[in-house]
Amino acid sequence: MTPPVTQSAAPISNALREIQAPVRGRLDEVAREMHTIMTADLPLIKEVAGHLLGMRGKLFRPTLALLASAVEDRPEPRALPLAALIELMHLATLVHDDSVDHSVLRRGLPTVNALFSHQISVIMGDLLYSRALRALVKIGDLEIIRILTDVSNELAMGEMHQLAAIDRLGFGEEDYFTLIRAKTASLIAAACESGALCGAPMHRAALARYGVRLGMAFQIADDILDYTESEAVTGKPGGLDLAEHKVTLPLIAALPRLSPAARRRVDHLFATESPEPDIVREVIDLVGEAGGIVAARQRGEQFGEEAVDALATLPDTPARAALRDAISYVLERRS
Amino acid sequence: MTPPVTQSAAPISNALREIQAPVRGRLDEVAREMHTIMTADLPLIKEVAGHLLGMRGKLFRPTLALLASAVEDRPEPRALPLAALIELMHLATLVHDDSVDHSVLRRGLPTVNALFSHQISVIMGDLLYSRALRALVKIGDLEIIRILTDVSNELAMGEMHQLAAIDRLGFGEEDYFTLIRAKTASLIAAACESGALCGAPMHRAALARYGVRLGMAFQIADDILDYTESEAVTGKPGGLDLAEHKVTLPLIAALPRLSPAARRRVDHLFATESPEPDIVREVIDLVGEAGGIVAARQRGEQFGEEAVDALATLPDTPARAALRDAISYVLERRS
Repeated sequence: MTPPVTQSAAPISNALREIQAPVRGRLDEVAREMHTIMTADLPLIKEVAGHLLGMRGKLFRPTLALLASAVEDRPEPRALPLAALIELMHLATLVHDDSVDHSVLRRGLPTVNALFSHQISVIMGDLLYSRALRALVKIGDLEIIRILTDVSNELAMGEMHQLAAIDRLGFGEEDYFTLIRAKTASLIAAACESGALCGAPMHRAALARYGVRLGMAFQIADDILDYTESEAVTGKPGGLDLAEHKVTLPLIAALPRLSPAARRRVDHLFATESPEPDIVREVIDLVGEAGGIVAARQRGEQFGEEAVDALATLPDTPARAALRDAISYVLERRS
Repeated sequence: MTPPVTQSAAPISNALREIQAPVRGRLDEVAREMHTIMTADLPLIKEVAGHLLGMRGKLFRPTLALLASAVEDRPEPRALPLAALIELMHLATLVHDDSVDHSVLRRGLPTVNALFSHQISVIMGDLLYSRALRALVKIGDLEIIRILTDVSNELAMGEMHQLAAIDRLGFGEEDYFTLIRAKTASLIAAACESGALCGAPMHRAALARYGVRLGMAFQIADDILDYTESEAVTGKPGGLDLAEHKVTLPLIAALPRLSPAARRRVDHLFATESPEPDIVREVIDLVGEAGGIVAARQRGEQFGEEAVDALATLPDTPARAALRDAISYVLERRS
């Protein structure tokens, strides 16, 4: 049996382990670097940072940055702090998202707002981000700084679009794609693109293209999981998006195919302030029966195929093979 | 009568008008540039940004950046976007601070969290900051980027220190100075230092030194106003710091001089969850009688004198004279 890559709250699947194989040793260094960047004397910061870094996930974005930097088999050392700060930026957005959504669980563990307070989550998000930024400036590459600061704007714009959505059931496929591109694909693409600048600059455009497609497939798969998997598997309650009136691709795909009676049940759920588990369960079933999940899965696979195509011009290295496997992993993952 | 520099919610005093005279035309451009940086199609963003830019204050930090860039009478054009993005960074921290403190008024107008929602204030703060950052990266000067991203870390650290303060009445003068240096003086100093890099790089260190001292004096004066001025003058309720159990210099200076009976009243206020106006009023009077306000004012004046000293090596230009006047303005301002 392969030893676990990292001590992690999220179980690392064998598929992910294989993807991470070419950068395994460096991923452990990334975890250490994240702790170093977040070092502080204040006990409160130590406690919150310890909780956040302890609940650390699969390090998917750092993995992509390291693999992108290695597609010509000559990754630069600065890819390592880059990978660490990208994960910290990701954590910063999760902390603010959870605060805004009043979420209580993340990766099966309590969120910062639930465990500490709303105040601490707002400021801790700012601190995570500013520390990541300081590490970014230390790398000293204006182009990499540009890529990652542009992402921050996209992430915030995505959140504002989500908050501004009034007519939730009028939220169509294009709105959804715009949203997940801003909220998810932008940072995943930036990890690939900035990683490329640390060892394979010739392949920057291809890896950025790959990253956007992979990120779209990643978020679609994530949104499908909310319809198909229970809390025991994902670490957060199933059906949460529906309960919070979030419209994602399975529902968008199902809506035009629903019977009038089924549509009335959906309308009822969206007209209910805090829907009961029964109606959430019922709508999940209706979406499945109308083919919403199958259709969403197909759309995800299309993005996956486009991601495969984007890798065509890359040299045949272990990193390239791992990036190829990352696409299947994203499409097939269950948590 | 001089026409107002800008349409502003905060009244611009004659003293401030004189300080702004050398950069008056450019300050109007700064205000326009702030709008340009915040441009967005989304109606919600337009509305929140319009509210924030409409309530715009005295543009004190942009004034300092522009003056610092002009101390050799040859300011660079890039000082203008720099000044605009510094004010946006300042606004971003105000929006998060108000959200964390649940404040309802700022500059006499409702805060973003009060007028819109907590969610919108968290994300809008992120958006303001990321837009400012994008403008910063566009200037393309790594040293300026370093100065301003370091400040973000100091600001967040300052907020975390404030949230972590448990034994509030044990908060001493040194703790207080550390806090206001991080929360206020850091950005004011960065405005002066980065401004210097846009036209007077020889004077960078002197202007950074000046800015820290000015910023300390600025925050001390602000904290004194909470003891001496009413809502009608400052745009936020008087005695708010005490009501929120925030310990500032007047109280710190008064504490060792209080009679046991007076001290018991202070302890009572700090043991009361939401103190009534009567006890707040009473403690304000006790602090004044014990000489806390006079002592705080003296400490502010010391910082002011150190700021004057820091200007000694600068050439004799209108900008230098205005920076000199800014010290008196900070110490004497009433709102």
